[in-house]
Amino acid sequence: MTDLLNKTISAIEWLDYRLMEKIQKRLDNLTKPQGSLGRLEELAKHIAGIIGKEKVSLKHKVIFTLAGDHGVTAEGVSAYPKEVTPQMVYNFLRGGAGINVLARQTGARVVVVDMGVASELRIADCQMRNFRDYKINLGTDNFTKGPAMSRADAVKSVECGIKLVEDEYPKGMDIVGTGDMGIGNTTPSAAITAVLTGQPIETVTGRGTGLDDVGLSRKIAIIKKGLEINKPNPKDVIDVLDKVGGYEIGGIAGLILGAAARRVPVVIDGFISGAGALMATAMAPQVRDFIIASHCSVEIGHKAALFRMGLTPLLDLNLRLGEGTGAALAMNLCESAIRILNEMATFGEAGVSEK
Amino acid sequence: MTDLLNKTISAIEWLDYRLMEKIQKRLDNLTKPQGSLGRLEELAKHIAGIIGKEKVSLKHKVIFTLAGDHGVTAEGVSAYPKEVTPQMVYNFLRGGAGINVLARQTGARVVVVDMGVASELRIADCQMRNFRDYKINLGTDNFTKGPAMSRADAVKSVECGIKLVEDEYPKGMDIVGTGDMGIGNTTPSAAITAVLTGQPIETVTGRGTGLDDVGLSRKIAIIKKGLEINKPNPKDVIDVLDKVGGYEIGGIAGLILGAAARRVPVVIDGFISGAGALMATAMAPQVRDFIIASHCSVEIGHKAALFRMGLTPLLDLNLRLGEGTGAALAMNLCESAIRILNEMATFGEAGVSEK
Repeated sequence: MTDLLNKTISAIEWLDYRLMEKIQKRLDNLTKPQGSLGRLEELAKHIAGIIGKEKVSLKHKVIFTLAGDHGVTAEGVSAYPKEVTPQMVYNFLRGGAGINVLARQTGARVVVVDMGVASELRIADCQMRNFRDYKINLGTDNFTKGPAMSRADAVKSVECGIKLVEDEYPKGMDIVGTGDMGIGNTTPSAAITAVLTGQPIETVTGRGTGLDDVGLSRKIAIIKKGLEINKPNPKDVIDVLDKVGGYEIGGIAGLILGAAARRVPVVIDGFISGAGALMATAMAPQVRDFIIASHCSVEIGHKAALFRMGLTPLLDLNLRLGEGTGAALAMNLCESAIRILNEMATFGEAGVSEK
Repeated sequence: MTDLLNKTISAIEWLDYRLMEKIQKRLDNLTKPQGSLGRLEELAKHIAGIIGKEKVSLKHKVIFTLAGDHGVTAEGVSAYPKEVTPQMVYNFLRGGAGINVLARQTGARVVVVDMGVASELRIADCQMRNFRDYKINLGTDNFTKGPAMSRADAVKSVECGIKLVEDEYPKGMDIVGTGDMGIGNTTPSAAITAVLTGQPIETVTGRGTGLDDVGLSRKIAIIKKGLEINKPNPKDVIDVLDKVGGYEIGGIAGLILGAAARRVPVVIDGFISGAGALMATAMAPQVRDFIIASHCSVEIGHKAALFRMGLTPLLDLNLRLGEGTGAALAMNLCESAIRILNEMATFGEAGVSEK
């Protein structure tokens, strides 16, 4: 590992438990039966404990949508052609995708990142503001024929995620959401999830954008082949990323580490972000406390990933779009939680009798 | 039943299935794998089918928080004194309660209604704008000693709910949320739920604002006594409301009927609203299609009520506050769903390849 990665990991501290006790007292003193706002109350306390400040505001919300392509799509693992990856990047930058719609609603800015799209993007000048070029390569290599990337590029992808946080932090970043775009990326995510949770491939591999039964069987066989050929070492996260990963997945791992090091709550999206989070928590177990799980994806492997990390998702709405859409929806709940903490009257203020 | 109630029930039509097919086609044409936004897509289609217009906007959101007191509190069924009901009404009108905070976030106006608070309220002139006086009585009677109210007042409470919709509709009402406030009101709600779902009292009675085990046993015994003494007829909803109901619960049933008659989607809150919805759907089964279940309450009887109506809640956040707080949170998801429908680019518009 390199300096930036090591420095970031060692900068990650603990939640501020003393502050969280104080927040609990305030929550218990608001005009409602104690605990009656359930997970919203836990969320408020959690967010305050991450940020480490008594007065929390979630004014500046950022969602990073990281894009990358995957050599393994040559094996026919996706229902969509890989041209869709750059086409969707353009869609993100024009504001027409699902993530744009939901981010506008929650008041988050969307930062679109090329981590390894398999074509040279032509971004209009007026759209550069929301775009970051961290392209490592023109897509990964086909992992059924050898490693998906070099070890150096695996480290680089994680470090790019850290740098994204560092670049963006000065512009205001009270909470971060992770998102992904990459045709075929449920395949490397399933491979990573299988290795890092120890689950059989079959129980962590889903239909992605819409495979039929035959397609699903083929996808499972391809992942099996990739793991047999590459033999990723489950004790060495960078090796797993190198052998069967994706640039955007490594980038998400880096985002999570970078945000945690800055005490910024990270709302993770679905299956791809879950694979990134598995890598981040394997590198630095204490990072788990800085993660908020937005939703439970339709992709079956996501449950195993969340269970491995001990995270309980806020939403369960049968989502499987990615892009950060689930994270955007959950940011609304984070906002609700913090507003409850900041705006509700106490029993004393409102003149309401207690038990 | 009276004219207003009969007229309202017979005005309730069906969802617009032809329009819903059209909406499905649009959803399938947006830049995402078909169905990948899961319940958000179903919700968009559902809301459009209720409203019956192709261009849906949820600009005008209204949450009704109906307050009433309960004679059965004399038996010690709640952890809080009944003075809290009017105190919370004042808190609602000053904007300091949970429902105010969450309604502000989702952009809903809160209309606070006195359906039967057990004291004369003194509302400041400046707060009258958000207040409606539909007081039927100074609280219900203790249902362990006879009926909670007269049959005429039971009908009146439902009709007040209908009138609330009629009064408010001209001011703009694209979607409605139901909410409640009333110390002790999980007791009549459990009684109603037991009668209308056919479940044993024990399986639909919870801890309300925080009873211990002894308190819970006593609450169950009190409900049992109430049902034995009053013998409400499960085939006659008004008899059930009359014998073991509450004014705010009847009012919620009326709100649901009135909104459905106007083709306004109704987002129901938790256990108390669920009891009101059970009554509304027993009076007019087709009203069920106009209801959106916001969340699954901690109160165990709510599951039975939702199951009886065939409704699947959007959220499961361990809430048990009432007031309409769950409805306010779910309105955010309704807004998300409609924004997806209205704002996302199609494959054609965005130049994205299909499968």
